[in-house]
Amino acid sequence: MKVLVSTIPFADHDQGPLEALKKNGAEVVLNPFGRKLRENDLTQIISDFDVLIAGTEPISQVVLENASQLKLIARVGIGLDNVDLMSARRHGIEVSYTPEAPSPAVAELTIGLMIDLLRLVQMSNVGIHRGEWHRYFGRRLTEVTIGIIGAGRIGGRVIRHLAGFNCKRILVNDINQSIALPSHPYCSVERVDKESIYREADLISLHVPLNHQTRNLITKKVMSQMRPDSIIINTARGGIVNEKDLFDTLQSGKLAGAAIDVFEDEPYYGNLASLDQCLLTAHMGSMSVDCRTCMEREAVEEVVRFICGQPRQLLVPEEEYTNQQMVR
Amino acid sequence: MKVLVSTIPFADHDQGPLEALKKNGAEVVLNPFGRKLRENDLTQIISDFDVLIAGTEPISQVVLENASQLKLIARVGIGLDNVDLMSARRHGIEVSYTPEAPSPAVAELTIGLMIDLLRLVQMSNVGIHRGEWHRYFGRRLTEVTIGIIGAGRIGGRVIRHLAGFNCKRILVNDINQSIALPSHPYCSVERVDKESIYREADLISLHVPLNHQTRNLITKKVMSQMRPDSIIINTARGGIVNEKDLFDTLQSGKLAGAAIDVFEDEPYYGNLASLDQCLLTAHMGSMSVDCRTCMEREAVEEVVRFICGQPRQLLVPEEEYTNQQMVR
Repeated sequence: MKVLVSTIPFADHDQGPLEALKKNGAEVVLNPFGRKLRENDLTQIISDFDVLIAGTEPISQVVLENASQLKLIARVGIGLDNVDLMSARRHGIEVSYTPEAPSPAVAELTIGLMIDLLRLVQMSNVGIHRGEWHRYFGRRLTEVTIGIIGAGRIGGRVIRHLAGFNCKRILVNDINQSIALPSHPYCSVERVDKESIYREADLISLHVPLNHQTRNLITKKVMSQMRPDSIIINTARGGIVNEKDLFDTLQSGKLAGAAIDVFEDEPYYGNLASLDQCLLTAHMGSMSVDCRTCMEREAVEEVVRFICGQPRQLLVPEEEYTNQQMVR
Repeated sequence: MKVLVSTIPFADHDQGPLEALKKNGAEVVLNPFGRKLRENDLTQIISDFDVLIAGTEPISQVVLENASQLKLIARVGIGLDNVDLMSARRHGIEVSYTPEAPSPAVAELTIGLMIDLLRLVQMSNVGIHRGEWHRYFGRRLTEVTIGIIGAGRIGGRVIRHLAGFNCKRILVNDINQSIALPSHPYCSVERVDKESIYREADLISLHVPLNHQTRNLITKKVMSQMRPDSIIINTARGGIVNEKDLFDTLQSGKLAGAAIDVFEDEPYYGNLASLDQCLLTAHMGSMSVDCRTCMEREAVEEVVRFICGQPRQLLVPEEEYTNQQMVR
């Protein structure tokens, strides 16, 4: 069983996943380029492999047409934007992912970004590094109305973390009207429509997947409904917040700030980088040692189940195929 | 009763404190300079006033010698570094402060700085703003051993906030051996000596006052006991971490990072600003709207008690006088 690991880094902090593959008889080849693979790289090397342990490199129709032996794509992570799911299905290739593993790291980073933005931490940091001292007035989590769009794995965790900060009011919107919301003893957690969040929240954090319903969810028009002292956080997926509209809105002072961890094209070198009030991080939501290790372990466990002929547990659900068909 | 409000801003977000003063017959003069007063400014204008509602401007012996009518200094805040307490006492002037009010804002900022440092948020932000994309590997609060030095009003709150993050191990040192420590259901909160914290903690956060015992608490020698991947947070007082030693230690790579909100001289324009791994904020621990309002309200309540001849409740305790004598 030949396994190509294209995701990078892999087994950097924990050799366990690599050892598990070898112990189960897999012949493992790690990414030979030492960088994120391009479509052409993958096309050239994929033909011999039975299993691909994948990152965010493009696993397109062209790649899959050259993957004559491929039977399983095991994504290390949750996003499937880079995998042509329908094409994989036509070639009889299973696709698995690790939807749970990144959640704790993304949720924790989101709390950090919330406090950063509310307290103007990055503004002050950048200022002092430039030789400018300014004591910014900020707001505490207790003082503000927090809007959470998407209350699934990550959004739910964010709400639970907020329990430790005596928040007074959390407004939540989820496409699933019956999704369970964490309850807080001292805080009102209300289910509302998105428009109420746009209108009333001081801080809006996005925790939805990218699909045909969420692409360009946050446009200039939507941001114009928000108050000028509002802030937006996107640790979900690039493309949900329209980057050009965000730039225009921030630059014209119609929004106080934003923290953006995910971009339409990554690496990101766009003009949001010219705005101090836009806190930018390099898609680091899942980049904690423990979560990354957990993602690798889960992906490898699925591969081992495949090798041993055991029932798969992390196959991508049907709705992901449906969503992708509607997007493309 | 003539009241000078030297602290600035004052009643910016909430008129309540100003109204309370006027309602109780005070003739109020707000800081006429619109900036932090210098010793000379204060000396020139103080002579007529019965009460001073003070910020961090120098209330020195010279100032007090010119304050022939002054009977109460009500500090908006907790720090007393700027008030010559013994001189005030010699002139028969009472000094009050607001030790509780800033705690929630300082504790919350501290959590934000912890996540920032652990996840390399500011490194990535500064990088992207410079046109460099790098996905840093970080650590979650769950993964690290957290050391808290000082478990009083603020340190205790920090420990309680950490409850929401499933931390595994918190090491705590306080000069008061019998101080109550918050208990966590899933986390070990251990009382240890400072050396154990230096040796074992991945993240060390300081929550002690500045006095003769804590001045230069964290020196090059102490930092050499820490692991090179450790990080330090100081939201307490400038002077507790030796700034020159911190610079040398960070620059030589013997410490992974630091977040410093307080400095020996403020505004700070020193060389820590040349280090990306040093997150710098402009003494913003208490700078949230709600905490600032709370500080102003508490200070004014003490002034009203003074005007009405009621027993004072926020007079600076004797140990602050003793500590200051030993420092000076």
